[in-house]
Amino acid sequence: MSALAEIETPALLIDRAKMQRNIAEMAAAIAGSGAMLRPHVKTHKSVDVWRDVLAGGGTSGITVSTLAEAEHFAAHGADDILYAVGIVPAKVARVARLLKAGVRVMAVVDDAAQGRAVADAARAAGVVLPVLIEIDVDGHRAGVTPGASELVPLAELIAADPALHLAGVMTHAGGSYGDATAAARAAAAQNEATGCVRAAERIRDAGIACDIVSVGSTPTALAGADLAGVTEVRAGVYTFFDLVMAGLGVTTPDRIALSVLTTVIGHQAQKGLIIVDAGWMALSRDRGTAGQAVDQGYGLVCDADGAVLGDIIVRECNQEHGLIGARDGRLDPARFPIGSQLRILPNHACATGAQHSHYHVVENGVVTGQWPRINGW
Amino acid sequence: MSALAEIETPALLIDRAKMQRNIAEMAAAIAGSGAMLRPHVKTHKSVDVWRDVLAGGGTSGITVSTLAEAEHFAAHGADDILYAVGIVPAKVARVARLLKAGVRVMAVVDDAAQGRAVADAARAAGVVLPVLIEIDVDGHRAGVTPGASELVPLAELIAADPALHLAGVMTHAGGSYGDATAAARAAAAQNEATGCVRAAERIRDAGIACDIVSVGSTPTALAGADLAGVTEVRAGVYTFFDLVMAGLGVTTPDRIALSVLTTVIGHQAQKGLIIVDAGWMALSRDRGTAGQAVDQGYGLVCDADGAVLGDIIVRECNQEHGLIGARDGRLDPARFPIGSQLRILPNHACATGAQHSHYHVVENGVVTGQWPRINGW
Repeated sequence: MSALAEIETPALLIDRAKMQRNIAEMAAAIAGSGAMLRPHVKTHKSVDVWRDVLAGGGTSGITVSTLAEAEHFAAHGADDILYAVGIVPAKVARVARLLKAGVRVMAVVDDAAQGRAVADAARAAGVVLPVLIEIDVDGHRAGVTPGASELVPLAELIAADPALHLAGVMTHAGGSYGDATAAARAAAAQNEATGCVRAAERIRDAGIACDIVSVGSTPTALAGADLAGVTEVRAGVYTFFDLVMAGLGVTTPDRIALSVLTTVIGHQAQKGLIIVDAGWMALSRDRGTAGQAVDQGYGLVCDADGAVLGDIIVRECNQEHGLIGARDGRLDPARFPIGSQLRILPNHACATGAQHSHYHVVENGVVTGQWPRINGW
Repeated sequence: MSALAEIETPALLIDRAKMQRNIAEMAAAIAGSGAMLRPHVKTHKSVDVWRDVLAGGGTSGITVSTLAEAEHFAAHGADDILYAVGIVPAKVARVARLLKAGVRVMAVVDDAAQGRAVADAARAAGVVLPVLIEIDVDGHRAGVTPGASELVPLAELIAADPALHLAGVMTHAGGSYGDATAAARAAAAQNEATGCVRAAERIRDAGIACDIVSVGSTPTALAGADLAGVTEVRAGVYTFFDLVMAGLGVTTPDRIALSVLTTVIGHQAQKGLIIVDAGWMALSRDRGTAGQAVDQGYGLVCDADGAVLGDIIVRECNQEHGLIGARDGRLDPARFPIGSQLRILPNHACATGAQHSHYHVVENGVVTGQWPRINGW
């Protein structure tokens, strides 16, 4: 155990009590729906965080954004993994190694040419690859629409190829990150569930099994939609939350479990600014609140204990310098002696986390451990 | 040696011939000035890149942005290091370990209270810490202005403290990254040199030695200023260059030596977009060209050999998905089969590099090696 004052800055902190509360809230939100929670580990990339998620209940499988995550979590006990990024043939060999080790890894396909090429790669690797068809419910990114004429032929192609197994359908209502009202999020969540269930029913109507109906995003998962027909919900950022989620009204800043600990390294008294040793290298370049009602700059400033100080934000960043100021007017630098510590809440937990190799875990105000992240691909 | 097609994507590439040309150009630009080049390694964080910089001539010492860089480069032979971020007492112990090992590490101070606290830490660690006073020539960030009444008293404080050694003065014309014309950059460069020399002369006029006069940034280093009185020039991003520098007119896109190799993973034919496996995790969230005359999105797209394709950019990013489209109108996805590779030139080489643990080095179209980066603090 270490005091925060002994931690070299910049450093990435998890407030474990806040995280466990966020985990419990999500578990409760999904519990009555009949669906399982398949948490996305791309936000935290930590098997230690995942253990707390498992302890929260209602979940066994995981979602990953990279094969590095799949391999790392499989090595730590995950045996039911959805790789939620469209797969290309060159990546099938790594998936095949996990499949042969008894780990179910499901891939995502949304195109017939891609499906055929991936099937050939699975055949060459000597495996049957479980795949989900990606459904596009809101024009956000990838996928076929629930009513598309291509949907059933793609399902038939997959079902007919002995190197593939059609495990189900999945969608991600990424458009919900732009929904600034609870009503809009509820509508997005219902649209996400309804669209994905409809796609599954069209496939089943063609006589093809379609067991998994996987939906999700943190905003829609917490929106209280009717999940009839949905078998699992995916969400990631809720473990930590961040200022983008707070700006949407999905959470509040005091419940954000991730922060960057930093040290005051200079004063610019005439400008009413202080300089800290957390620049964009520690905070990330993410400016996800720039388009929201309240622009948090590069992050909202808290005292060393994690209490929000008010309208004090990181106004500018260089690589290893952050310039902290008041949202309006000037700070009195005398409040922030050189050498004193502050915490900064992130715009986007996934992006800020990615700038660090590990977390310092804070419990009751002291650092109780270091948890590594699995970065890279 | 590997063909590019064998490299798993996303992957960070160095075009070594382009990098060596950039290195030679900078060495030539500084050669006649009487100053030494003290390259900033924060862009590449690679001792292998540094070896090519050393081979380019005109340099021996380095500049670092983190103590992790200082320790790593010292372990690979660097013995004259400027840590160019304002130091706090808690970091002096790590510097002291390097000093005791015979590595000159110079720190930066711009405030009397900071200077006294750092001196106490150096005393406790049993070292004499060489420091430069940071000079503020353009209101960009930290430092005391060349004419400030605080300058000479700060120099006297440092010179009088036996735990400190006043090695000189340094400045960084960070404002030059906003100068979009050669004339404005030339003016910024002259202002940077003149201001820093003036600060040194004021200190010398007080009877205090001030050997080092250190200036620099890539735009000002290449601006052809009169460097009389300047002893060294710092620059970093020139090794790779990037789209921000191209947007300023400091270089052109075809000379950018850093890129991200990516694979086409999907098509959105009706939108005229293709989806690749390089999202912001591989490219960074840096949008440094957003405020320039030509907004390059999240990067400018090249074919797999590195030739710019024209006005094709990464228009949107998710964590592991990039959406590529034409700047105007639609792409024909048939030009970009699923599974084919592209390269993406970065907005900001320092930020994109930071998303990766290593480089793949490309020479004559094949990958000849992997070079690690020293990330973290």
